[in-house]
Amino acid sequence: MAAQQPITANVLQQRLQQLRQEMMQQQLVAVLVRATDRYLSEYVAVPRSVRAFLTGFTGSVGDALITHKQAILFVDGRYQLQAQQQAPHFDVRVVTLGCSVEQAWLQQLAADTALCGGRLFVSADCLSMQLFNKLTKQVQQNQIEIVTEHSQAAQQQAAVWHKLWQNPPQPAAAVRLVTQQITGSSVLQRLAALRPLLQQQQLQGFFVAPLDAVAWLTNLRGSDFDSQAVLAAQAVLLHDKVLLAVQPQHPMPTQLEAGVHVVPAAQLCQTLQQLLGKSFRLGVDPKTTTQASAMMLQQAGAQLVPLASPIDQAKSIKTAQELRYMRNCIARADECVHKVQQWLCHEVMQGQSITEQDVGKRIRQEFAASGACDVSFAPICAAGEHAAVVHYTQLDDQHPIQPGQLFLMDVGALYDGGYATDLTRTFLVGNAAMQATPQQKQRFTTVLQAAINGMTARFPKGTSGVQLDALVRAALWQQGYNYAHGTGHGVGIHVHESPPRVSPAGHEPLQVGQVFSIEPGLYLPKWGGIRIENLCTLLDNPNHIGYNCVLPLSFAPLDERLIEMRQLTQEQQRFLRYFARCFALANDELPPLFEQAQP
Amino acid sequence: MAAQQPITANVLQQRLQQLRQEMMQQQLVAVLVRATDRYLSEYVAVPRSVRAFLTGFTGSVGDALITHKQAILFVDGRYQLQAQQQAPHFDVRVVTLGCSVEQAWLQQLAADTALCGGRLFVSADCLSMQLFNKLTKQVQQNQIEIVTEHSQAAQQQAAVWHKLWQNPPQPAAAVRLVTQQITGSSVLQRLAALRPLLQQQQLQGFFVAPLDAVAWLTNLRGSDFDSQAVLAAQAVLLHDKVLLAVQPQHPMPTQLEAGVHVVPAAQLCQTLQQLLGKSFRLGVDPKTTTQASAMMLQQAGAQLVPLASPIDQAKSIKTAQELRYMRNCIARADECVHKVQQWLCHEVMQGQSITEQDVGKRIRQEFAASGACDVSFAPICAAGEHAAVVHYTQLDDQHPIQPGQLFLMDVGALYDGGYATDLTRTFLVGNAAMQATPQQKQRFTTVLQAAINGMTARFPKGTSGVQLDALVRAALWQQGYNYAHGTGHGVGIHVHESPPRVSPAGHEPLQVGQVFSIEPGLYLPKWGGIRIENLCTLLDNPNHIGYNCVLPLSFAPLDERLIEMRQLTQEQQRFLRYFARCFALANDELPPLFEQAQP
Repeated sequence: MAAQQPITANVLQQRLQQLRQEMMQQQLVAVLVRATDRYLSEYVAVPRSVRAFLTGFTGSVGDALITHKQAILFVDGRYQLQAQQQAPHFDVRVVTLGCSVEQAWLQQLAADTALCGGRLFVSADCLSMQLFNKLTKQVQQNQIEIVTEHSQAAQQQAAVWHKLWQNPPQPAAAVRLVTQQITGSSVLQRLAALRPLLQQQQLQGFFVAPLDAVAWLTNLRGSDFDSQAVLAAQAVLLHDKVLLAVQPQHPMPTQLEAGVHVVPAAQLCQTLQQLLGKSFRLGVDPKTTTQASAMMLQQAGAQLVPLASPIDQAKSIKTAQELRYMRNCIARADECVHKVQQWLCHEVMQGQSITEQDVGKRIRQEFAASGACDVSFAPICAAGEHAAVVHYTQLDDQHPIQPGQLFLMDVGALYDGGYATDLTRTFLVGNAAMQATPQQKQRFTTVLQAAINGMTARFPKGTSGVQLDALVRAALWQQGYNYAHGTGHGVGIHVHESPPRVSPAGHEPLQVGQVFSIEPGLYLPKWGGIRIENLCTLLDNPNHIGYNCVLPLSFAPLDERLIEMRQLTQEQQRFLRYFARCFALANDELPPLFEQAQP
Repeated sequence: MAAQQPITANVLQQRLQQLRQEMMQQQLVAVLVRATDRYLSEYVAVPRSVRAFLTGFTGSVGDALITHKQAILFVDGRYQLQAQQQAPHFDVRVVTLGCSVEQAWLQQLAADTALCGGRLFVSADCLSMQLFNKLTKQVQQNQIEIVTEHSQAAQQQAAVWHKLWQNPPQPAAAVRLVTQQITGSSVLQRLAALRPLLQQQQLQGFFVAPLDAVAWLTNLRGSDFDSQAVLAAQAVLLHDKVLLAVQPQHPMPTQLEAGVHVVPAAQLCQTLQQLLGKSFRLGVDPKTTTQASAMMLQQAGAQLVPLASPIDQAKSIKTAQELRYMRNCIARADECVHKVQQWLCHEVMQGQSITEQDVGKRIRQEFAASGACDVSFAPICAAGEHAAVVHYTQLDDQHPIQPGQLFLMDVGALYDGGYATDLTRTFLVGNAAMQATPQQKQRFTTVLQAAINGMTARFPKGTSGVQLDALVRAALWQQGYNYAHGTGHGVGIHVHESPPRVSPAGHEPLQVGQVFSIEPGLYLPKWGGIRIENLCTLLDNPNHIGYNCVLPLSFAPLDERLIEMRQLTQEQQRFLRYFARCFALANDELPPLFEQAQP
């Protein structure tokens, strides 16, 4: 990616002024600018982000509320500093733990009586149905009228900012069909598995908005977006086929799987009417379907039935083939990370000047050399106290990394089968003789104990994410440490998928075959941070009927110089020996369970 | 207590027939018979239980649904066997884990289409407002009409079973005032603390139904019920006083605390009208207020505001004085349990024939000798495989306890200050030379590890019961064991109080000053059971700001013959030494934290 020109404060101020002029002309009292795009993506490339354009802030989470008197940017704790630096004209509000950015602006809208009776612009493309409904309820008491680009006559439909900023054309890269050797399931098999769920709810179809769900359902992968193996498309799951709606100019593979029918995006509604009649029952997940899509489908005659997507759960449970393929990718990424770790230590000890950005480039190179087509997210490479920032993505290119520093590397690759990897290692910069301080060892070993808790956890079927989360944290809690993020997230086509959620908010039971991270950490401002992240899956416990086992899938070596062996129990030490042996497994080989491994 | 005459199957059949005749006459298609009484008490004495009268079943949890064709008794897993034996004419349905007895009959009512359009009798005295509302909704689809004793003209108000069974007159024992040396708070102080909560909700008062809340609020204790230090009374919390509604014949102490105003129960409504006017806003907790009370208050002009009771939370957080007093009671009970354990082992080794009932009597005697006025629940004394039943209260008087058996004793005392204790020990019957089997040791030590996990848990403020619950279970899960009950419950005036809940359903944060049990167990049918229960409290962690510590309060010796030391970590072994030393503390002395104790 080309380096972005930093936007000056003056330019940003001008943009804000222009927006407010537009607001005046359109008689708006407020504009809500969201971080997300029409796919409700977690990460939006900066050039495609109107939020970045208008505020200057480039972080992944952060919505802005602009009135004539105020300009507020709501972010979470990890982005406080960055937001304050990048968005000088905004009042940066950091949401408290357990509160979301969305809740924060909802509250603000309810509290700001100056907006009473006024008109608020939001883009219906950037709000889920669920959030739109919440917003509608929230503004009722202040009698605020919600205006979207669709509120106007069809020929005038445009966002309030359309004179300042327009979304650049969507890239349309080549699309590839993934073999069933990798996915373990044909589209027709998936259709057969999902059909009873449609029938149960008397649905004629289900609208599939999330990009990874579309990729999963069709066994197609694309590269229209950075760090995502997906194509810009949406789908409708019918009883006997999938309608895949793409822009007509989008290149498509000559061969598709049986059951996949491509329709030009603009003709999706028409096709639905032809197939299902003038009125039809269509399931939609209100969390992932935009209000704009909902309005479009309703106009086409759909009776929308709000329902949690049956695809999320199905997609989270990997087939044996997916597991084997993901294990292969994870093993390749393990090696890359280990190589970069060795390279960095060697170069620094040779007196070379290496910055965080150099490490970021190197890991991209190693991933590419191992066959990866992309990273699965912008690499986090943090030296010393930078690692105290959980999502540290603005890599430094000024300060050479120093011997004796702790270095945190949280990176993931995307291989051509289109599944993400995700791994974090924290290590001491230096050669074998370099000694960690007792404090570094004590803290690293505490995080390691938490990680081992997770990787050796055994529990009854039906155990939920919040319970596993507590088991992992316990080791840190015991020492008065904690981390302000979940213990783990699901991983699949996207590097973050849900379910599962291994976090205090994870109330769903964990399922055999899900792949998720276990990534406890410890962050101390001005000192630094330690995180150890491994991808794992869940198995039936072969020794105890009705019980599950966590099985680690990633084995990049841990830095032994940072381990205080006396702090570990015998069992934990035995686990480390098992863990180290597993690094030598063939890439395709699924590791044995700890209990079943040789002592 | 006098031994109850076993009721013959014939008598039970007759009762069921008579009830069905009454149902015919009153044109009822179904009758719901609940385990609870007008105080929604957890334990109802058998002679006061219409459910016991009509079904024969004497367990604490279990509701019956009787139609003309069916007689169903819904119980939870611990009561399956007992219900089948005691209620031969009932179809015993065991609810699945995570489902309550109430949910089970609600579902049954919705499913049984034979009841469509018919009339169902329930006693409004035995249903909370919340449950009554659920029931009302649930039967709508079947168009079932709900009939209560209040559905009829005032002079005819009676339950469907009134010709068969009537509640014996409520005992009215002496009432005592507890000193502030024990409670640490006067009634006026409590009023001052609760007043802002009333004001916040613009309430003129709050109706206080739970017996322990009434006792707490007034600093009064009674003995109207077995195993409960409470009086049969209800209260209304006002801004400046508590109205205490008791039957006029109830003896009361000559002196009450300032702020407590006694009114005859029948005049409560009238008094409220005199004080608050013809219409007033009154808070009620829909979980603990019966539908009958709600109807009475509404008739008196109350506008009921449903709200979680502010008293539950306040009551759960013990004052320093309460903690010290409870610690004293717990220490006394510890000694009693230890003495009975020693006595039992000695007698059995002497060849004496001792049964479970003998042990039950002995523990009552020891408690009485230590100053207790009652047990806080019917003692559980289970030898060998009997201990596989979690709530084993039908003690055996036939089979002498054998050397080498595991013996489980779960007992609690009530001292005159009116706080409950609760302790479980499992030990090997025999002298010091008696050896446990490797399996007994392995299993006992696993439960012990779980208990130690709980007693040494440290976690951030705001951690909820479900999280602590998982930390405790982890040791058992690791070995493929689990227990079908919560890890712990709150303890105060009642032996079970909520909050806190240390269980998978415990989503509220744990609070400093709460007292709760940690009681992991392991139950194997035909083998037996092991449970280790200790009462604990929660402290601010002196070493880490923002963190809490669990502090054990009970230290009755653990059976060392059952501990496999090699299975424990160094830290766990060190904890056992700390635990053993704390048994020697003075009764009034709060134990030191494990971290702060001498090594």
